[in-house]
Amino acid sequence: MGGKDLEVFKRRIYEILEASHDGDVVSKRYDVLMLTAVIVGLIPLTMKEGNRYSLIIDVITVSIFIFDYIMRFYTSDYKMGIKSYKAYVAYVFTPMAIIDLLSIVPVLTFFFPASVTLQLFRIFRVLRILKLVRYSKTMVVIENVIRKVRAQLFAMLMIACAYIFAIAMIIFQVEPDLFEDFFDALYWATISITTIGYGDIAPATNIGRFITMLSALVGVAVVALPSGMITAAYMDEISRKKSKLEI
Amino acid sequence: MGGKDLEVFKRRIYEILEASHDGDVVSKRYDVLMLTAVIVGLIPLTMKEGNRYSLIIDVITVSIFIFDYIMRFYTSDYKMGIKSYKAYVAYVFTPMAIIDLLSIVPVLTFFFPASVTLQLFRIFRVLRILKLVRYSKTMVVIENVIRKVRAQLFAMLMIACAYIFAIAMIIFQVEPDLFEDFFDALYWATISITTIGYGDIAPATNIGRFITMLSALVGVAVVALPSGMITAAYMDEISRKKSKLEI
Amino acid sequence: MGGKDLEVFKRRIYEILEASHDGDVVSKRYDVLMLTAVIVGLIPLTMKEGNRYSLIIDVITVSIFIFDYIMRFYTSDYKMGIKSYKAYVAYVFTPMAIIDLLSIVPVLTFFFPASVTLQLFRIFRVLRILKLVRYSKTMVVIENVIRKVRAQLFAMLMIACAYIFAIAMIIFQVEPDLFEDFFDALYWATISITTIGYGDIAPATNIGRFITMLSALVGVAVVALPSGMITAAYMDEISRKKSKLEI
Amino acid sequence: MGGKDLEVFKRRIYEILEASHDGDVVSKRYDVLMLTAVIVGLIPLTMKEGNRYSLIIDVITVSIFIFDYIMRFYTSDYKMGIKSYKAYVAYVFTPMAIIDLLSIVPVLTFFFPASVTLQLFRIFRVLRILKLVRYSKTMVVIENVIRKVRAQLFAMLMIACAYIFAIAMIIFQVEPDLFEDFFDALYWATISITTIGYGDIAPATNIGRFITMLSALVGVAVVALPSGMITAAYMDEISRKKSKLEI
Repeated sequence: MGGKDLEVFKRRIYEILEASHDGDVVSKRYDVLMLTAVIVGLIPLTMKEGNRYSLIIDVITVSIFIFDYIMRFYTSDYKMGIKSYKAYVAYVFTPMAIIDLLSIVPVLTFFFPASVTLQLFRIFRVLRILKLVRYSKTMVVIENVIRKVRAQLFAMLMIACAYIFAIAMIIFQVEPDLFEDFFDALYWATISITTIGYGDIAPATNIGRFITMLSALVGVAVVALPSGMITAAYMDEISRKKSKLEI
Repeated sequence: MGGKDLEVFKRRIYEILEASHDGDVVSKRYDVLMLTAVIVGLIPLTMKEGNRYSLIIDVITVSIFIFDYIMRFYTSDYKMGIKSYKAYVAYVFTPMAIIDLLSIVPVLTFFFPASVTLQLFRIFRVLRILKLVRYSKTMVVIENVIRKVRAQLFAMLMIACAYIFAIAMIIFQVEPDLFEDFFDALYWATISITTIGYGDIAPATNIGRFITMLSALVGVAVVALPSGMITAAYMDEISRKKSKLEI
Repeated sequence: MGGKDLEVFKRRIYEILEASHDGDVVSKRYDVLMLTAVIVGLIPLTMKEGNRYSLIIDVITVSIFIFDYIMRFYTSDYKMGIKSYKAYVAYVFTPMAIIDLLSIVPVLTFFFPASVTLQLFRIFRVLRILKLVRYSKTMVVIENVIRKVRAQLFAMLMIACAYIFAIAMIIFQVEPDLFEDFFDALYWATISITTIGYGDIAPATNIGRFITMLSALVGVAVVALPSGMITAAYMDEISRKKSKLEI
Repeated sequence: MGGKDLEVFKRRIYEILEASHDGDVVSKRYDVLMLTAVIVGLIPLTMKEGNRYSLIIDVITVSIFIFDYIMRFYTSDYKMGIKSYKAYVAYVFTPMAIIDLLSIVPVLTFFFPASVTLQLFRIFRVLRILKLVRYSKTMVVIENVIRKVRAQLFAMLMIACAYIFAIAMIIFQVEPDLFEDFFDALYWATISITTIGYGDIAPATNIGRFITMLSALVGVAVVALPSGMITAAYMDEISRKKSKLEI
C-alpha cells in the first residue's frame, strides 16, 4: 500500500466518522452503530449489581468506543485542518475528545476492581450521553444560545454560589445544632434557594426561620436572573435569523 | 329520500357539528349539550367506587359521545374537503378524532369488568377535557404559541429527559441503598429537577448530597430554557399582530 | 345652610377623600389616618384569641371605615361624574366599594358571635390590604401590566385549573388509597404543579410515580406560560413609554 | 516631610487602593492581599466552635480590614472629589464604607465575649463577601440591570410581602391550631409562596388546604412578575449596547 493509497484510506475513514456526505450509506450506518452503543452501554448503569449480561455489554460497547477513539485520533489532521503532529496534540484537548476519553476510562475498573477511586470513575460513563449531541442537529440552536450567554451564565453561577455560601454561613452561626457540619449547611442552602425544599433539614428556631424567609425572597430574584438572561439571548438569536432572511 | 336530499341533510349535520354559523341556534344548543356531557361525564372519575348514579351518568354520556363520533365520521368528507372514501380514513387519524375515540373506549369496561388492562383505559376518559378546547375561542392564541415552539419544546423535553436520566444514573451508582430500583432513581431525579422536592426520597450521604446540589443548580437553567422559549414565541406572536394592524 | 353651601361642603369632602390636590394638607392627613387604620386594624388578625386590646382596635378602626364608606357613598355623584341617583347605585358596585363594604361586614361578628358563617367573614378583613393600593402611586405601572394581560391570565388560569383537575382525576383512579376523597387529590395536584411539594401526600406505587413524573414535566411548561405572558406585557408597556418620549 | 510630599504620598495610597492603573503592580498585589483576606477570613464561619486557628485567622484578617478602612477613610477627599472635611463625613455613609465598617464590628466580640447582642454581630462578617464585588469587573452589567429595576423590584417586594402577610392572616384565622404564633404563619406563607415547601408545616383541614391551593395558584403569577421585569430590563440593556455600536 503506497502513501497515496493510505491517504485515500484515511480520508475515507474521516468521511465515515464525520458523516459530512448526506448520501453516504456507510457513514450513516456507523452513526447508527455508535448511537446504539451509547444507549446500550448505559443499561448496566441502571442495575444495582453487575451481572453476566452487564459485563458482556460493557466489554462490547467499550471495545467499540476504544476503536472509535483510535480512529478519531488517527484522522486528527483532517479534523483540525493542519498537516502536522500538532493536530494530534490539539485534538486530544478538544472538549469532545476529552469526553470520549473519560467515557472509556471506567473500563479500567475491569482490571483493578478493588480500587475505590476507580469505582467513582464509573459515573464518568454517563458522559457518553453528551456524545448524543454530536449526532443531533436540532440541538445546534440551543447550543448557540448557551454559548452566547456562557460568560454571563458563569458570572450568575458565581453569584448564586457566593449567595449560597453566605446564607449557609449565616444559618450555620445562627442554628449550629441543625447541622452536623458546614457541608450540611451548604446542602440545605442549595436545596432551599433552588426551591426544591425536601424538608429533611428545616429551620426550627425563630431566628433561623426569619433568615430562611429573607434568603428565600431574595433567592427568587437570584433565580430569575439566569432565566431572564437566557430569554434575552434566545430572542436575540431569533431576531438575528429574521433580519438575515429580510436582507 | 333522494341522493340530493341526503346530501342536504348531511350538510346540515356538518353545520350543526362545526358551529360555523353564528346565528345557528341548533348548532349552539348542540355545543351546550356536548359541553354538559363532557363535564357531567367526568363526575364518576371523582368518586372512589362506582355507584348507581355514576353508572347512569356513564351510560348516558358515552351514548352521546358514540352518537357524536358516528356523526363526525359520517360528515368526514365535508370536514376534510375531499369527496372520496379517503376522507373517512384521513379523518380517523386526525388528533381530535383519536381523542374522541380514546374517550369512548373506556366504555368497554362495562362488558369486560374483570380485565385489568381495560381498567387502565378508564383514565382515558380524562382526555375528554381536551374536547373542551374545540368549543373555546380564547385558547386559539395559546394554541398558536404552543404550535410555534412545538419543535423546540420537544427538543427541550428531550434534553430534560436526557438530563434526568444522567442524574438518575449517577445517583443510582453513588447511593444505591437509597433506591429500590432504577425507576425510583428516575422518579427522584424528576421530582428534584422540577423543584417539587416532596422529600420522600432525599440523599443521605455527603457524595449524594453534593451531586444533588450540582444537578439542582444546573437544573434551574434547564428549566429556564423552555420558559425563555415560550416568552420569545409569545412576544413574536404579539409583535406580528401589531405589524399587521400597522400595515 | 343653603343648597349651594351644602354643595361646596360636599365638594370639599370629595377633594379630601380623593387627594387630588397635592398641596391639600387636610387631604394628606386623612390619607395618613386611613393608612394607619388599615394597618392597625390588621393587628387583631395576628393574634390567636381576641383580647381586650384587639376589641378596642376593632371598634375604633371599623368606626373609621364605616365613616369613610358613608362619606364615599355620599360623594358618589362627584366620583362617578353623573348628577343623578344612578351614581349612588353605580358606585356601590365598583370593585373598590365592594372591597370597602366586605372589609366592614366582619363587624357583624360583634353582635352575633355564635354564628359560624359570620366567623368566616373575619377573613374578609384581610381585604383591607387591597385598600393600600388606593394610596400607592408606584403600583400604577404594575396594575396596568396586570390589566393588560387580564383576559389571557384568566384563560391561563382556566387551563391550569383544567390541567390540575385532569391530573387529579387520573391519580385518583390510579392510586385511590392515597387519598381520602377527590378534594385531597385536587390539593395534591395543585401543590405538585406549582412545585411547592410539601410531601405530606406523595405517590407510593410505580404507576402513580410515573404519572407524577409526566405531569410535573408538562406542568413546568404550563407554569412557564403565564410567566412569559407577563414578561411580554411588561416589555410592551416599557417600549410604549419610550416611543411616547421619542415622538 | 513637607505638605507637598504628604500629598504625593496620599495620592499614591489612593491609587493603590482604587487600582485605577492597569500596569500598577503594587495596586494589583494589594487587591490580591485583600481578596485573600476576605476569603480566608470567612473560614472561621464554617466551623462550629472557634479553635486556636480560627482565632489567629480572625486577628490577622480583621487587622488587615481595619488598616484598609483607615487608609480608605484617610483618602476620602480623593475618592469623593471634594477637598474639605465634608468628604470624610460623606465617605463614611457610602454603601461600601458601611459594609466595610459592619464587617469589622464583629471584632468587638473578642473583648466582650459574654455579650449576646455582639454574638449576633458575628454574622455581619458574611457581608465581607460583598467586598468581592469591588474587585470583579464582570459583575458591572448585572449591577446595572439590578440598579435599573431597583425601584420596581422594591415595589414588587412590597407586593410580595403584603401578599404573604394577607395569606398568613387568613390561614392563621382558619387553622389556628397549626401554628404556635403568627410568626409561624408568616414563615409557612413565605415557604409556600416561594414554592420551597419544606413540609414541616402543611395544612390539614379542607378549608386550610383550599386557601393554600388558591394562594399557590395566584402566587405563581406574583413570582412571575419580578422574573418578567428583570428579563425586560436585561433585554433593554442589551439593545442599548447594540444601538451604541451601530451609531
